[in-house]
Amino acid sequence: MISFLTAGESHGQLLLGVIEGIPAGLELASNDINIDLSRRQIGYGRGGRMRIEKDLAEITCGVRWGKTMGGPIGLLIRNKDWVNWSDSMSPDSSLSGCIPPETRPRPGHADLCGIIKYSHDDIRNVLERASARETAMRVAIGAVAKRFLAVFSIEVLSHVTEIGGEKAKLLNRQLDSIIQDAERSEFRCGDKKAGARMRKKIDEAKKKGDSVGGIFEIIATNVPVGLGSYSQWDRRFNAKLSYAVMSIQAIKGVEIGIGFEAARRFGSEVHDAIYYDKVRRRFYRKTNRAGGIEGGITNGENIIIRAAMKPIATLYSPLDSVDIKTKKPFKASVERSDICAVPAASVVGEAMIAVEIANAFIEKFGGDSMTEIKRNYEGYLEYIKEI
Amino acid sequence: MISFLTAGESHGQLLLGVIEGIPAGLELASNDINIDLSRRQIGYGRGGRMRIEKDLAEITCGVRWGKTMGGPIGLLIRNKDWVNWSDSMSPDSSLSGCIPPETRPRPGHADLCGIIKYSHDDIRNVLERASARETAMRVAIGAVAKRFLAVFSIEVLSHVTEIGGEKAKLLNRQLDSIIQDAERSEFRCGDKKAGARMRKKIDEAKKKGDSVGGIFEIIATNVPVGLGSYSQWDRRFNAKLSYAVMSIQAIKGVEIGIGFEAARRFGSEVHDAIYYDKVRRRFYRKTNRAGGIEGGITNGENIIIRAAMKPIATLYSPLDSVDIKTKKPFKASVERSDICAVPAASVVGEAMIAVEIANAFIEKFGGDSMTEIKRNYEGYLEYIKEI
Amino acid sequence: MISFLTAGESHGQLLLGVIEGIPAGLELASNDINIDLSRRQIGYGRGGRMRIEKDLAEITCGVRWGKTMGGPIGLLIRNKDWVNWSDSMSPDSSLSGCIPPETRPRPGHADLCGIIKYSHDDIRNVLERASARETAMRVAIGAVAKRFLAVFSIEVLSHVTEIGGEKAKLLNRQLDSIIQDAERSEFRCGDKKAGARMRKKIDEAKKKGDSVGGIFEIIATNVPVGLGSYSQWDRRFNAKLSYAVMSIQAIKGVEIGIGFEAARRFGSEVHDAIYYDKVRRRFYRKTNRAGGIEGGITNGENIIIRAAMKPIATLYSPLDSVDIKTKKPFKASVERSDICAVPAASVVGEAMIAVEIANAFIEKFGGDSMTEIKRNYEGYLEYIKEI
Amino acid sequence: MISFLTAGESHGQLLLGVIEGIPAGLELASNDINIDLSRRQIGYGRGGRMRIEKDLAEITCGVRWGKTMGGPIGLLIRNKDWVNWSDSMSPDSSLSGCIPPETRPRPGHADLCGIIKYSHDDIRNVLERASARETAMRVAIGAVAKRFLAVFSIEVLSHVTEIGGEKAKLLNRQLDSIIQDAERSEFRCGDKKAGARMRKKIDEAKKKGDSVGGIFEIIATNVPVGLGSYSQWDRRFNAKLSYAVMSIQAIKGVEIGIGFEAARRFGSEVHDAIYYDKVRRRFYRKTNRAGGIEGGITNGENIIIRAAMKPIATLYSPLDSVDIKTKKPFKASVERSDICAVPAASVVGEAMIAVEIANAFIEKFGGDSMTEIKRNYEGYLEYIKEI
Repeated sequence: MISFLTAGESHGQLLLGVIEGIPAGLELASNDINIDLSRRQIGYGRGGRMRIEKDLAEITCGVRWGKTMGGPIGLLIRNKDWVNWSDSMSPDSSLSGCIPPETRPRPGHADLCGIIKYSHDDIRNVLERASARETAMRVAIGAVAKRFLAVFSIEVLSHVTEIGGEKAKLLNRQLDSIIQDAERSEFRCGDKKAGARMRKKIDEAKKKGDSVGGIFEIIATNVPVGLGSYSQWDRRFNAKLSYAVMSIQAIKGVEIGIGFEAARRFGSEVHDAIYYDKVRRRFYRKTNRAGGIEGGITNGENIIIRAAMKPIATLYSPLDSVDIKTKKPFKASVERSDICAVPAASVVGEAMIAVEIANAFIEKFGGDSMTEIKRNYEGYLEYIKEI
Repeated sequence: MISFLTAGESHGQLLLGVIEGIPAGLELASNDINIDLSRRQIGYGRGGRMRIEKDLAEITCGVRWGKTMGGPIGLLIRNKDWVNWSDSMSPDSSLSGCIPPETRPRPGHADLCGIIKYSHDDIRNVLERASARETAMRVAIGAVAKRFLAVFSIEVLSHVTEIGGEKAKLLNRQLDSIIQDAERSEFRCGDKKAGARMRKKIDEAKKKGDSVGGIFEIIATNVPVGLGSYSQWDRRFNAKLSYAVMSIQAIKGVEIGIGFEAARRFGSEVHDAIYYDKVRRRFYRKTNRAGGIEGGITNGENIIIRAAMKPIATLYSPLDSVDIKTKKPFKASVERSDICAVPAASVVGEAMIAVEIANAFIEKFGGDSMTEIKRNYEGYLEYIKEI
Repeated sequence: MISFLTAGESHGQLLLGVIEGIPAGLELASNDINIDLSRRQIGYGRGGRMRIEKDLAEITCGVRWGKTMGGPIGLLIRNKDWVNWSDSMSPDSSLSGCIPPETRPRPGHADLCGIIKYSHDDIRNVLERASARETAMRVAIGAVAKRFLAVFSIEVLSHVTEIGGEKAKLLNRQLDSIIQDAERSEFRCGDKKAGARMRKKIDEAKKKGDSVGGIFEIIATNVPVGLGSYSQWDRRFNAKLSYAVMSIQAIKGVEIGIGFEAARRFGSEVHDAIYYDKVRRRFYRKTNRAGGIEGGITNGENIIIRAAMKPIATLYSPLDSVDIKTKKPFKASVERSDICAVPAASVVGEAMIAVEIANAFIEKFGGDSMTEIKRNYEGYLEYIKEI
Repeated sequence: MISFLTAGESHGQLLLGVIEGIPAGLELASNDINIDLSRRQIGYGRGGRMRIEKDLAEITCGVRWGKTMGGPIGLLIRNKDWVNWSDSMSPDSSLSGCIPPETRPRPGHADLCGIIKYSHDDIRNVLERASARETAMRVAIGAVAKRFLAVFSIEVLSHVTEIGGEKAKLLNRQLDSIIQDAERSEFRCGDKKAGARMRKKIDEAKKKGDSVGGIFEIIATNVPVGLGSYSQWDRRFNAKLSYAVMSIQAIKGVEIGIGFEAARRFGSEVHDAIYYDKVRRRFYRKTNRAGGIEGGITNGENIIIRAAMKPIATLYSPLDSVDIKTKKPFKASVERSDICAVPAASVVGEAMIAVEIANAFIEKFGGDSMTEIKRNYEGYLEYIKEI
């Protein structure tokens, strides 16, 4: 089973990740990771930080001569801004109080509840870890999972379908074409016209000192039938995917397949009829409203999951708040921030989904080495054809 | 930490549950559980089964003289229909093949992917456990969690906001009044007029041999600030709630607070401004678009979560499918089924959310006995006032 | 992954178990379980209880027509003595106080620390679950794991090597012969002469109102090389086995292979030299001081683990203790108890080890059905020959 | 709950650790960790490596201005020898094959089973992670746990009781005096005379090209009554301690309290009679044969656990083995190695036990900050006095 832990603060020295359970013999280079780190940093409407940091991952252990060894993989991502923060974020007690505590919680952040939960009197102690900066390491870890999945021709893709209420129109578009366009778009959107409207919306928000959220979709292709289970509530694969995606900062909604729309249609318009392809000897569907999962188990169609991201909570325009020390009201606002981080979030979404699929894959096909997993997987594919 | 396992098939002898980690000294009677079991069985549009089974829980261990002992609690719910199924569902090998295998998978169910996953040749081996019958035991376990939460005046409530596209109008309605009306409604809906429209929709579906889904909302009141954490992805409380709710059969979408709507508004219209009440010495919000969770942590406001349920997948009207043995197409249809199970699902939702809140509560406040947890919790409430 | 929960008190209505993660298609009958339940009840020096209870397991779910379905397996073992305890152990609050509380903690039991931990004022609320009665369900669950292992010709055996200081002499004895004799012995001891001395020791203890403990050994044969891992501390297989065995009531020591003796020898007398059998194309050892595990991984030799059991803590002869209510000293003694339970514990040990091996097996070879696991396992055995 | 992951190879660039679940507000400096890292490196009979590496931990995240923030703590320990290994251990695929593979497995190591498990053809890919070098990071993590425990006056101590069969005589010695002497001894042994005999034994082994193991004892003082539980097998505290200690490289046996000796005595000579101290208002024992745990729960007496370590498996004098590629026999021997690592292992043992106690403490007393845990703990201590 894959498990991982990350550590690191937004303005700390570095982010650190350990991923346990990746089989031996997987080809892996830091560049595999850096490509996704860089995809996470692209996007119209990002603030200055994204220009400061050009994230690069260092593989410090677990990989030798380009291949995983079967033990834990250790990753580091250095924060380039650290030079400016080494005092205020120092582990050293002698620097205690070198800058005054932050006592003004921002609505929409963990600030206030974090400070109460952890008995802090300086909000910085909360925001530094609650920050979405942490997702850089998630993306790095997800990139490892993607490398694993790629060996089995499984891809995890994403595109943005909506920003600030501006919707992409993708009817009758092939997935390949959508993704190709999305990868070239500053909005990670497959519909260029919608991209233009999204730009306008972000510009409008910027002018108002406001922010916007949006919706992104993650698609996993070539996932085999049979991952997940209905046997116990926590083994249902849709539930696990939902857990993974909802854990991303600012996500407020998740849906699989046609999602909420399924609640509004008749059953006959929701369920995907079953067909059999005698040539390829496999069952298939002509529709995929289920988003690739039935009864908590993958059914061999593409996995489709969408997530709703709320707007960035750090606004230039002020929101009412209260100083935690003085209890006096103030207007919460900031000098610099992102306006929109939906494209970045979609890359984080890919990472989380990739880890879940890799995990379910390893659970089902076992194996400690790529050799063994391939052998087991091929045996399964043969078996499916014989059904 | 609370953990639980359930066992049992839809037409098996009984459902069985073990719940570990409930503190000692909690007052608990089977009636506490039976009330919720009965709430799960109510609802317009249920098929014949609900009339056969009047679910009753037996507490077989873990409780002595009306109080939990601190050890695992064992629960049984007998399937009244067992007499008619004791041969076809017998554990005894001598009855093997006493009825012919089911080889016709129903679209929208685990049937087809379950049979491939588990190498079965009889779909009954899949559908019996994949069935939502299993949720009766979840409701029983949730009822135990609710009893625990009630000691701390935390309530977990639910109502149906939409069935088959018919929406409840609840603007300017107080929660108490919504819930009161919902508890009296066959649709668990707080808006009587919407209820009438829902009835029509269900009747229409029935006539067409079709089914409908819908949306329900779960609200947890009086949850303290500070449950969950941003420290690691899997500790975020919204993610855990999403996991729990998405694990319920037929759920295809989950949203917290204003959910998907948050993706369409400007940030200034999403985040909940912070105020301070000097008399009660607490921070509060005038709005609750966040649904009670910021940065993965409860913020002291009501927790609000909505789930989208797809229509029942067992239809009277036929859907295309393929026999797994002969590979010949057929029209999947059934004689008897529910038309709509949204009200029942909302009660299951309460149960799952109650377990998650109880679990986070015990994680934060520790303690092996009610005495100890109360002492710790009261200390925390005192501390909050002193902030 | 296999996981399980048990519930039930020593004098409650029944013991209840749920085991999750057993693959589909495993042949399983209640008789498979009952044989081990009965082996657990045999043994010279047991008190009256063993004569009252003839444990029988009911498979209530998870098995259909003699085969597992892939979902959770539910088991019940009824306590025959329940008729005499239905009031004092009733879940019903109306019976509260129908017998006076027990306030006299017995040294060597969980009584005193349990009552403090759980804020109880009646020791019965502690002792009922802390009792070794619970191990009946562990044996039942272990029997399921053994059935699984048997398909791969893996056996988990045990024998008693020492009771009350009387040691079996087994030098130059074949394992088969030891086990055969042990299965016929009231002491589960492979050395008949030692058995005679053990009987004397138990009789002596009985006369003195005292009790004796002992040492048993568990052997697992035909376990494949490669279970467990050194990758992370909690994946080391010896550590997991130790966890499992030390969790049995009254176990105070565990050792693997030559165990403590290894600490006293030179390295050259401890490590097992490596040889290669060209005919069977496998590496092997002439010695097995490691007990089948090197570096946290099984090495293909028999797994050997020994456990030290302290004497039964319930004595006829009195020990000093203090009433928890009055704080007055008293002499703790009982009317009826076992003198020696080492043979029973060795059967429990088998069960726990069987579950751990089955779990590691499933982790390595994956698979949801016996068909799939066999296919994967055979592929691995082929691969080993090709090394 | 505390959890942690480590990563890093013996000759890799660095060791890396992430520890999750340490409460906020704990004072922590790298020096707290470095003291234990240095204690791990002391010991008569260590090879050259210990002189190369003077381990120092860097706290890279989770701590600000001398206090934990409540999020994960990230630690690094650089391998000073890395300069000599940067090619042979490089993650870069271009260096693949820059040195020939190691194909000669050493008996007593993970070498052979590791290579089979992970489908490797170079033993270095196994030994690098299986090596006890990894325990440096465990000691660092344990030091964090110890800092936590120190706030509650809980100490975790250790001393060596036996090396190569030479036993310390400690009868009638006070714990303080034993530990004081042990801390000054190259053998971590509290008996100076035994130390002299241990030196001789190690010298003898060295001369013969052999190695020796031994036994160490860990003692935890001031642990409150009530940690652990009998409720479910995996919650028993002795079992968890056993898991933790047996996970240390080369440990083959574990015992609690008088351990194996308990199996040889009459019950009346094993169980610890209960007394009550009216002045300090607490129950106590005059003996502690149980080693501080009864029924899986701490009883307030010192926790005592001993572990048997086998001799170092890397010998100067040759052992039979077989080349994995050629299948030809060879004599396994090495140029440089430790003769005895028992003193180091005892420090690792402290670390593992400290983590387990801290974990059980946090589970029982809950809390996210030191303030909160102290409040809860004090409430419990008050309650105990009132029993």
